[in-house]
Amino acid sequence: MDVEPIKLGLVGIGKIARDQHLPAIAGNDRFVLAATASRQGRVDGVPGYYDIAEMASACPLDAVSICTPPDGRYQQALAAIEAGLHVMLEKPPATTLSQVEALVEAARAADVALFTTWHSREAAGVGPARAWLADKRIEAVRIDWKEDIRRWHPGQEWILGPGGFGVFDPGINALSITTSILPNELCVESATMDVPAGRASPIAASVQMRSAGADVRAEFDFLQTGPQTWSIEVDTDHGTLRLTEGGSVIQRPGEKEQTDLDLEYARLYERFAHLVAERAIDVDLRPLRLVADTFLIADRRSVSEFLF
Amino acid sequence: MDVEPIKLGLVGIGKIARDQHLPAIAGNDRFVLAATASRQGRVDGVPGYYDIAEMASACPLDAVSICTPPDGRYQQALAAIEAGLHVMLEKPPATTLSQVEALVEAARAADVALFTTWHSREAAGVGPARAWLADKRIEAVRIDWKEDIRRWHPGQEWILGPGGFGVFDPGINALSITTSILPNELCVESATMDVPAGRASPIAASVQMRSAGADVRAEFDFLQTGPQTWSIEVDTDHGTLRLTEGGSVIQRPGEKEQTDLDLEYARLYERFAHLVAERAIDVDLRPLRLVADTFLIADRRSVSEFLF
Repeated sequence: MDVEPIKLGLVGIGKIARDQHLPAIAGNDRFVLAATASRQGRVDGVPGYYDIAEMASACPLDAVSICTPPDGRYQQALAAIEAGLHVMLEKPPATTLSQVEALVEAARAADVALFTTWHSREAAGVGPARAWLADKRIEAVRIDWKEDIRRWHPGQEWILGPGGFGVFDPGINALSITTSILPNELCVESATMDVPAGRASPIAASVQMRSAGADVRAEFDFLQTGPQTWSIEVDTDHGTLRLTEGGSVIQRPGEKEQTDLDLEYARLYERFAHLVAERAIDVDLRPLRLVADTFLIADRRSVSEFLF
Repeated sequence: MDVEPIKLGLVGIGKIARDQHLPAIAGNDRFVLAATASRQGRVDGVPGYYDIAEMASACPLDAVSICTPPDGRYQQALAAIEAGLHVMLEKPPATTLSQVEALVEAARAADVALFTTWHSREAAGVGPARAWLADKRIEAVRIDWKEDIRRWHPGQEWILGPGGFGVFDPGINALSITTSILPNELCVESATMDVPAGRASPIAASVQMRSAGADVRAEFDFLQTGPQTWSIEVDTDHGTLRLTEGGSVIQRPGEKEQTDLDLEYARLYERFAHLVAERAIDVDLRPLRLVADTFLIADRRSVSEFLF
């Protein structure tokens, strides 16, 4: 039986769209890229529109994938759902938890698929780490997520503004991996955040968490120059498991480092095709909830002004 | 058929325990107050212990009701659940969302009832407001929750500290009512918070929310002297409904104000008895989620020092 491919509109044609989404869509025969919506970007050979409303009225579509900056995602996703389209969202799916709940309510009412993606969970080492940890006793976890804001987010003033999440914009990737590999719920106990003068969001943070009996400590830093660190170490009753390079490299106790092909976005689109076929909802709010919890109870320290 | 009453331990013997919990327990023949745990408080004629661990090992119990200050509630609830006891929690149930999720996980594993209460939802006007609004089109909502911190929370320094929630300690009552009477999900769009110099939590806040097509605006203020304001006004296609006095007074369009007996805590204990019988979980995180969302995206303004 032949099944018609899913006519997809890609919303937000920037760096992540070109680096990740376009190749993944091109490599999946369940999708055909039917249109794009972007204020500036265009893709050769694909009809381009200014926004979702214009795109949806001009072009017959089944689904959209939204990879604009986080601030407008909720409104765009809501518009797409209300136009009867299935929706896939880059991480984080919105700037508040309650916005995501409102999207779930709207998607149920419209009977469309909704997929809030966490691409780091598809990194090569994450699935093997989850499988290895499943029958171990977790004793302690150390998360170090330290990168140079000027290198990865040059001039992105919004990231330190209200709703920009600051160092948790990359840090939420670590939380998405950790919630996915640990067998028990992770909960925030205390936190400190360093907020530069005149900014709303933190440039560094320490978060003390717990997962069943295990102590989980995370250090986030946006001012790391030189080598960059995206690592998670899990001490167990069978030794220490290490995930490095953002989850793409795994080292089990007594073994060598291992990695594999980068299939993060290929896997996300494969999953989205399944969700569209079932009109299903796949929403996991835990990474965003941990960030909200941290903002809720953190002790904020004012640190010196930051200029890009 | 006679059913044994539920042997209850009351944890935290302070003002709210004496004003509300003890009379509600005495008025419900499904419960017998078997013990208390408190660092200072005692109840005449009831065995008193220092904490849950001491109480649970000394005294056969079925359930506990926890009304200590919010900061230690999570650890106490977890200890009670792990001792196999059913648990009822004052509002807010913990200081973070993820702590509540961890309690749900623990309660499921222990097969005990868990009830995170929101007493304001049981105020006399709230049920009638929900019923009246159910078939109306909601156009706009205005929440004004303004009280004098020095009058209601004298010397409670923790309330303005990390995890104290500041003006959202009372304000979460308004959010618990609003989420319970509106037919659609409520979501946070933007917010400002006024934080006194040297404090972590806000003394005033404005929150812009949305519920389906309706604009929902909330003003929280901890510095209101003179008359105190705890009101919610809902504009609909059939006129404006007013809830005042913290939800205990309702005024439908064109009608007089109405109120009824205060049965808030009587209803909570009645519900808890049902949950215990079914070993069921009744946890609604929406009020706490809206507070966390507000902290996550708020624009913080530093205001002058506050002294009690």
